[in-house]
Amino acid sequence: MLTSRTTPESRRAPEEIRRHHLGALLRHLHLSGPLSRAKLAERMGLNRSTILALTAELTAAGLVREERPRETGRAGRPSLVVRPEPDRWYVLAFDVAVDRVVAARVALGGAILDRREAVRPRAGVDLETVVGVLAGFGRELRRAADPQARCVGTAASYCGMIRPGDGMVRYGPDLGWVDQAFGAELGRQLGLGLPVPVGNEAHLGALAEQQRGAGTGFQNLIYLHGDVGVGGGIIVGGGLLGGDGGYGCEVGHMVINPYDGRPCLCGSRGCLEAEVGERALLDTAGRPADLIGHDAVREVVTAAENGEPAAREAVARIGDWLGIGVANLINLFNPGVVIFGGMLRDVYRGSAAQVRARIATNVLPVSRERVQLRTAALGYDATLVGAAELGFADLLADPLAVAAR
Amino acid sequence: MLTSRTTPESRRAPEEIRRHHLGALLRHLHLSGPLSRAKLAERMGLNRSTILALTAELTAAGLVREERPRETGRAGRPSLVVRPEPDRWYVLAFDVAVDRVVAARVALGGAILDRREAVRPRAGVDLETVVGVLAGFGRELRRAADPQARCVGTAASYCGMIRPGDGMVRYGPDLGWVDQAFGAELGRQLGLGLPVPVGNEAHLGALAEQQRGAGTGFQNLIYLHGDVGVGGGIIVGGGLLGGDGGYGCEVGHMVINPYDGRPCLCGSRGCLEAEVGERALLDTAGRPADLIGHDAVREVVTAAENGEPAAREAVARIGDWLGIGVANLINLFNPGVVIFGGMLRDVYRGSAAQVRARIATNVLPVSRERVQLRTAALGYDATLVGAAELGFADLLADPLAVAAR
Repeated sequence: MLTSRTTPESRRAPEEIRRHHLGALLRHLHLSGPLSRAKLAERMGLNRSTILALTAELTAAGLVREERPRETGRAGRPSLVVRPEPDRWYVLAFDVAVDRVVAARVALGGAILDRREAVRPRAGVDLETVVGVLAGFGRELRRAADPQARCVGTAASYCGMIRPGDGMVRYGPDLGWVDQAFGAELGRQLGLGLPVPVGNEAHLGALAEQQRGAGTGFQNLIYLHGDVGVGGGIIVGGGLLGGDGGYGCEVGHMVINPYDGRPCLCGSRGCLEAEVGERALLDTAGRPADLIGHDAVREVVTAAENGEPAAREAVARIGDWLGIGVANLINLFNPGVVIFGGMLRDVYRGSAAQVRARIATNVLPVSRERVQLRTAALGYDATLVGAAELGFADLLADPLAVAAR
Repeated sequence: MLTSRTTPESRRAPEEIRRHHLGALLRHLHLSGPLSRAKLAERMGLNRSTILALTAELTAAGLVREERPRETGRAGRPSLVVRPEPDRWYVLAFDVAVDRVVAARVALGGAILDRREAVRPRAGVDLETVVGVLAGFGRELRRAADPQARCVGTAASYCGMIRPGDGMVRYGPDLGWVDQAFGAELGRQLGLGLPVPVGNEAHLGALAEQQRGAGTGFQNLIYLHGDVGVGGGIIVGGGLLGGDGGYGCEVGHMVINPYDGRPCLCGSRGCLEAEVGERALLDTAGRPADLIGHDAVREVVTAAENGEPAAREAVARIGDWLGIGVANLINLFNPGVVIFGGMLRDVYRGSAAQVRARIATNVLPVSRERVQLRTAALGYDATLVGAAELGFADLLADPLAVAAR
């Protein structure tokens, strides 16, 4: 109601409208799976003859086909459904996470067809090593694919701050990277002649959960991704919050305990990630300093469920800090849903009572009327799935041009 | 880059395009003042013959006129400029702030032509009283206006949480209002047959500063409005952050001192507004508990500048908390500018060093590369100006229809 911007106006050329419709139709199939022409007409607000024409063009390009749906159990001849061609078009998606690097071949339609994964040492690893491993995985995945299948895009998720547009890692505290040309270098070594757009892992996790996971249908969504630290992906009015440089959503460095807080990797003190990150939980539970990783976090949460006092105390305390952070975000964003991803899935599982108590205390009643709390439906693959969606962006923007490339 | 939403697509009818262009042209003049046809063509990306036709329609409706610009000092005949007709069209804008109620007649073009103002007691005042005073001011302002001038809209700013669409005050902690039909009741008593849309004061302040103040040209902007508490208006990607219910931007209830913090009016503890609000400053400076208001705040800031130890200590301490809050917001929103409004103009004036120190410590380097800190250019009238803009929304959406009403 209050926004009143002026946007420059120009009539769209028919060709541009057709391209847009083709992309939108393919996106519906890509995200929803097979749909009848009638359903497509309804969802897109177009008449059936337009859908027929668009489908014919996509079929001719080999991007979709029409087929009988699976047995419905109902009498009568079932109407045909349009489905994307998963065997002919794929993307290569990469994920540089805190504890692993992953590469996957992902089909049009979203299925993960094949994947390669390696454990990543926590200590500093240089750009060359990471890119070498990922590019090797990429070559293996391509060799294992049907020779007829075409790679139409590549993209990567990275656990750090990324410059939009060129995949430059501006700040990757965990690997110690500053201003490393990750996307460009990976693209060069893959040698496919395709750019490798890169996104922050929590941003991509948020988009993946919104498109295919626990956030479907929400226009205002907060995704929290826990590992060593806490990343955030925040969707505002349907679009990812970027800010002026694309570096927004840094929920992990929201200071909530400025004077008594734990030191943070960023140099500050009492950041959300310092209070609820992996190390905070493990230290508070009295676990040895060399114990790290998701399994260690899960062990503490399970021990708490089984009544171990130190673990119970740790989970409750970390849950309280998590609740403070989440309550702040609900007051700021009035979201429809907050999704806990990465190791925060486990922490939230063990501390939902503390989180809810903080929301009840700290969030204004009007703002918490309808908010839901959920765990990530895509699990640890949310970031990888988000990278795959980024890889499909060009195809879905202009299907015929990309298919004809 | 990462957003990939599907928007339903439909060709705009020529009539709709024309209406949009008329509104956009009038908005340019309303916000920028007189412009030549050449300048309008350039700004709107339209050719001169289209501008000529649009201007002719608006002239015929009495909304604009063409005239010679003021003496430019350059030789030759100056080209005509198009200007809005300020004497014929106005809105009534209202502002229910913490310490005053204001009504103003605001001309097309944005000039405040006339105003009425009353000091408001801090203690609870009921809906009937507030609406009675404002409606009375509204009648006075109309009587004082040229009988030929037309009121084309009304709108109000309110220091609380407002339901978009019907001007219902969901939560007004300061006046003790919960679910009060403020907009509807003010509309009824004004008797103009016009709805009275209502906006939260900080939301409207943010929009006003973006359109006419310190935030012009910024697409990502944070406006902080201080009085008893701290309100926020946050513009993300050019649009006001609303969230699912329109209740987002509650920066004042971001908890930054959960265990040792001052109690907050909301029932929580250590909220930003509890740490940096008027009472925190006055208490820390050792001022008596019955001293309140902007003048008292200004006195402390001035005393600090003059070296009074208690005042210096108070301003520095409140500035540190303010810096923590601002740093958190910069990490979250990666804005181009942060604007201090209301009494925070004075607090920031006295504590810019503390605020900047916190930003240097707490904000990730990448996120603070380009952010600017400014004080509100519209001063205490930012909220009133925002209400006026809200009042002009209908006219600027469809100028000919509203002018012909």
